[in-house]
Amino acid sequence: MKHSGLIPHNFDLPFNILRCSHVDYGVTDLDKSRHFYVDTLGLIETERTADTIYLRGLEEQNHHSYILRKSADPKVFAVGFKVAFDKELDALEAHLKGLGLPTSWVTRHGQGRTLLARSPQGIPMEFYAQIDRVPTMMREYGAYRGCHPQRLDHFNCFTPNAQATYEFFVRELGFRLTEYTLTEKGEMWAAWIQRKGNVHDMALTNGIGPRMHHSAVWVPTALNIIHLLDLMSTTGYVENIERGPGRHGISNAFFLYVRDPDGHRIEIYTCDYLTVDPDLEPKGWDLRDPQRQTLWGAPAPRSWFEEGSLFEGTEVSEPVMESRPIIAE
Amino acid sequence: MKHSGLIPHNFDLPFNILRCSHVDYGVTDLDKSRHFYVDTLGLIETERTADTIYLRGLEEQNHHSYILRKSADPKVFAVGFKVAFDKELDALEAHLKGLGLPTSWVTRHGQGRTLLARSPQGIPMEFYAQIDRVPTMMREYGAYRGCHPQRLDHFNCFTPNAQATYEFFVRELGFRLTEYTLTEKGEMWAAWIQRKGNVHDMALTNGIGPRMHHSAVWVPTALNIIHLLDLMSTTGYVENIERGPGRHGISNAFFLYVRDPDGHRIEIYTCDYLTVDPDLEPKGWDLRDPQRQTLWGAPAPRSWFEEGSLFEGTEVSEPVMESRPIIAE
Amino acid sequence: MKHSGLIPHNFDLPFNILRCSHVDYGVTDLDKSRHFYVDTLGLIETERTADTIYLRGLEEQNHHSYILRKSADPKVFAVGFKVAFDKELDALEAHLKGLGLPTSWVTRHGQGRTLLARSPQGIPMEFYAQIDRVPTMMREYGAYRGCHPQRLDHFNCFTPNAQATYEFFVRELGFRLTEYTLTEKGEMWAAWIQRKGNVHDMALTNGIGPRMHHSAVWVPTALNIIHLLDLMSTTGYVENIERGPGRHGISNAFFLYVRDPDGHRIEIYTCDYLTVDPDLEPKGWDLRDPQRQTLWGAPAPRSWFEEGSLFEGTEVSEPVMESRPIIAE
Amino acid sequence: MKHSGLIPHNFDLPFNILRCSHVDYGVTDLDKSRHFYVDTLGLIETERTADTIYLRGLEEQNHHSYILRKSADPKVFAVGFKVAFDKELDALEAHLKGLGLPTSWVTRHGQGRTLLARSPQGIPMEFYAQIDRVPTMMREYGAYRGCHPQRLDHFNCFTPNAQATYEFFVRELGFRLTEYTLTEKGEMWAAWIQRKGNVHDMALTNGIGPRMHHSAVWVPTALNIIHLLDLMSTTGYVENIERGPGRHGISNAFFLYVRDPDGHRIEIYTCDYLTVDPDLEPKGWDLRDPQRQTLWGAPAPRSWFEEGSLFEGTEVSEPVMESRPIIAE
Repeated sequence: MKHSGLIPHNFDLPFNILRCSHVDYGVTDLDKSRHFYVDTLGLIETERTADTIYLRGLEEQNHHSYILRKSADPKVFAVGFKVAFDKELDALEAHLKGLGLPTSWVTRHGQGRTLLARSPQGIPMEFYAQIDRVPTMMREYGAYRGCHPQRLDHFNCFTPNAQATYEFFVRELGFRLTEYTLTEKGEMWAAWIQRKGNVHDMALTNGIGPRMHHSAVWVPTALNIIHLLDLMSTTGYVENIERGPGRHGISNAFFLYVRDPDGHRIEIYTCDYLTVDPDLEPKGWDLRDPQRQTLWGAPAPRSWFEEGSLFEGTEVSEPVMESRPIIAE
Repeated sequence: MKHSGLIPHNFDLPFNILRCSHVDYGVTDLDKSRHFYVDTLGLIETERTADTIYLRGLEEQNHHSYILRKSADPKVFAVGFKVAFDKELDALEAHLKGLGLPTSWVTRHGQGRTLLARSPQGIPMEFYAQIDRVPTMMREYGAYRGCHPQRLDHFNCFTPNAQATYEFFVRELGFRLTEYTLTEKGEMWAAWIQRKGNVHDMALTNGIGPRMHHSAVWVPTALNIIHLLDLMSTTGYVENIERGPGRHGISNAFFLYVRDPDGHRIEIYTCDYLTVDPDLEPKGWDLRDPQRQTLWGAPAPRSWFEEGSLFEGTEVSEPVMESRPIIAE
Repeated sequence: MKHSGLIPHNFDLPFNILRCSHVDYGVTDLDKSRHFYVDTLGLIETERTADTIYLRGLEEQNHHSYILRKSADPKVFAVGFKVAFDKELDALEAHLKGLGLPTSWVTRHGQGRTLLARSPQGIPMEFYAQIDRVPTMMREYGAYRGCHPQRLDHFNCFTPNAQATYEFFVRELGFRLTEYTLTEKGEMWAAWIQRKGNVHDMALTNGIGPRMHHSAVWVPTALNIIHLLDLMSTTGYVENIERGPGRHGISNAFFLYVRDPDGHRIEIYTCDYLTVDPDLEPKGWDLRDPQRQTLWGAPAPRSWFEEGSLFEGTEVSEPVMESRPIIAE
Repeated sequence: MKHSGLIPHNFDLPFNILRCSHVDYGVTDLDKSRHFYVDTLGLIETERTADTIYLRGLEEQNHHSYILRKSADPKVFAVGFKVAFDKELDALEAHLKGLGLPTSWVTRHGQGRTLLARSPQGIPMEFYAQIDRVPTMMREYGAYRGCHPQRLDHFNCFTPNAQATYEFFVRELGFRLTEYTLTEKGEMWAAWIQRKGNVHDMALTNGIGPRMHHSAVWVPTALNIIHLLDLMSTTGYVENIERGPGRHGISNAFFLYVRDPDGHRIEIYTCDYLTVDPDLEPKGWDLRDPQRQTLWGAPAPRSWFEEGSLFEGTEVSEPVMESRPIIAE
């Protein structure tokens, strides 16, 4: 396979994005959403204000990794990333301005200084270094519910130009490629890129976008996922089960995809691998290999390839490449 | 729902069928089959003769629960049942003769006196009381492979007249109904019937038959099934994965269906419930309820509804009832 | 090993004890006990009266398998067994009277006719055929808590004469031996005996008695047991964890022993094997083999060998045999 | 608690230690060791030379994470760490020389330039940036054996001066503290320090040292650990099981400790938490809290506190602090 689309990693940036940190969802009914995220998935409610619920995973000591904000329509306000030190936010601002990208400083409840920016394709991204510290519930097993969600693991976005989005995240933000699929022409079809040392903090897939495909929570074992399936199936959420359970070829992780009451897609995810070595060779997959999607061979439903959440204030467009239809995956 | 098809259990028979015991498969390539059943599923090889392999589960102390017999075509020679005491075989013979059914005494390697008979619909059945005792491998964890199969659990057969076959097994052989689906007219669409005290030793489904739908092995946990999926997916058996993993509504068991090299369907099964109470009320399901098939809502593939193994010497026929097409399940 | 203590099974009794059914505990604080059994273990509360709580496992359709009765002192009022048909209770009464054992008819909430009797060593036993039917919660996963207890599995009792108690249960009640330990003189040291088709409905161990050693609940997998350990360790019950987790050599089951607020010992148990064959050869263990207790070699604490619950109205006595001290196990 | 022993993290070093990488064990019988590490634990043999076996975990793409080297006596030749880039090795050499520590360049099979050094307390440490790349076996499930070991996770060492060793690793090598126990005087009793983003790459405990307490392999779930216990218990290794299974309060990980044929201690480890945030607050534990060792309360055996492997060429000494005896833990 000709790897013409691959570019070198960039280890010389004046800031250090640690990891994906949180997602800010617009939801139409806070109580319905709370029933899904807290009573069913098992996330911990840190705080509820008049129009917003702040949630975190069982191990997390940050004020929030999931924000549910009352909204007239389902949407994603932003995806959030944590940088190592506050001063890096200024370096990041300068860097993004230098690229001609829009940035602004915003106030976010529970967070310190927060830089809002957009990727060239329009993905709204927040960056911060400081967030309110709250107690970990990891050793409070009496608080464990649902699938025992430990932490936010990653985001996955549709983009109309996966090659360009991949290049932006790798070259300009320092993400590192772990797995990928190229088209026959050697362009990036889908990319898994990381900062925190496992398979991904962000995945990018060619498609009508930018749109959010899903966010993922990490759970301890596959049996937690099976229990969630049993639970959702018998508490009114059977229609919200979209795909899985299964093993991804890409990432080798065990997965389940469910939809929240507004249709936002959540992956329940466990068991990938360590990627902290900078010389780790990215693994390329053949677009024609169905096992990259599901090691066990079962196809994903059409909705999984086509549906996604809109980003606030972002127009979507058709993919720019002459590509095979994504459903062919 | 009108339960017109249900009949009373029969507790007054002069014999005591303990459980389903073994299945005698005709396979076209012994080595290929051995690689599937022993090296992949993890069954224990008790003995191999010139044309036959005798297998058992890890906990089993019987000489065989799976027989693989070299055959020009894939087929099922018989399904086997164990009765409590040898003298009961004579009572059973008299009972079946009294019903006008064909019976004969046959010699089976490793088994004591064996009575061969056919159900009114033509399912070939063997009955015996004595079988060679071999060591259990249950505590020999060095011999554990594949999905850690502990024992044969049950059979499932297509029958062209589920109502009649159900009545035969319940009234004449003493099986007890645990779960069932009736048609809108109150006829038996599918029945789960047992002797050993869990959900079934035999299941019956309306369809072109009689044919063997599947046999099932019991494994300790769902994680053994997930490992089998991973193993089959990366050792050349990905196409042999047919359905699952999932949770059945019926039985509440966790399942996977795979196909052996000849297409015989094997269910990997765990975690149903205790049914030894004779006054346990059978659970009826609505034919329109998709969760009876898969609690989580995922449909089974067409092959699962249509394909089965032929019984040796048995003609198949179309279902006699004016029924909804089985694919509608 | 000389098996002089073994006696034949008895298949010719005029009644059919199906299984162990329930235990009737005297507890000193109903609310504390409820917090342990319902909120922590996860049993379902069927009914609460002024002085009694009736509990059942998730799959059980019987009104109760655990009874918690307000009592000045911790005790066990009786262990309960279900017989197949009501008329068998009369046959059982006649049989026990013929042995010179005390019997009486008692009224028990939720149960039909109930025969109360005592074993020759003084274990109070209830027998009934009919019990109020309540819905199974097996498919109501929203009700799953704690270790997901599915059903009562067995009892274990200290007896001052294990040989005699074993002979009573086998010869007079039709229990069947599955595993056992003999002393060097060939007397029964400990016996596992069953009716329902797995390793035991009752186990007997030589010791000061008769006393209840423990009752056991069946859970789906070892991970449910691990979660219970985490839960108890962080909700005020760490001192109630007595032994385990581990694998028994005897039964091959995965186990944990915990103590309720009154000290009653509960085993959390999963994964033994099928024993419905009447010709299944019982497995004998060497009293000097520590792996019969814990396959992995870890010793049990002294309390596990010495402490038990008193039966209501029963005097205890020292073991009659000149035996090795039980702590030597 | 007075945290006088805690020092700030150091984010300004001219090199970047990525993670613990490998351990080089001296073993007295290569075949016996191979049976333990490969046939029992399930590590993959990358290469075997006349006197050395090189092993790796299932997901690892490095030539080795475990080295077994024929030796007259059991010992540890070195613990290995990987740095991000080759040029950093020179910066590291200069830094260590500046501290007056012994360093030398050594040749190691399969590795690029390798710097050998010793900590002030005498722990032999290897550093390298480049190692031969071999295929990951992560998706080759046919190669999975034993406990399905995925990767090396961490080391744990006794040191006669935990405070000093902790300060060296944090101040001079850039490790970050995640959990710790202080003495009543505020000195470091035990420290868990990390580079790769989970709880530790290295743990330090006060005791006769320096000695290696254990190395740990990461496995997917607790059920893999339970299977290893079953396997070791029935294949001649029951005496090699030392402690567990259990949950550590510290790290919240599920663990088992076993001993290899030479007595080297291996931890089988799963399920801790993410620590990439530089502002993550280290968690302090009270030396009197037994749940820090085992959340479930079970004590560790004396051997676990007292025994360890000697480092090649390193004298051991008694702890310098007037400390409570370690067995009191």
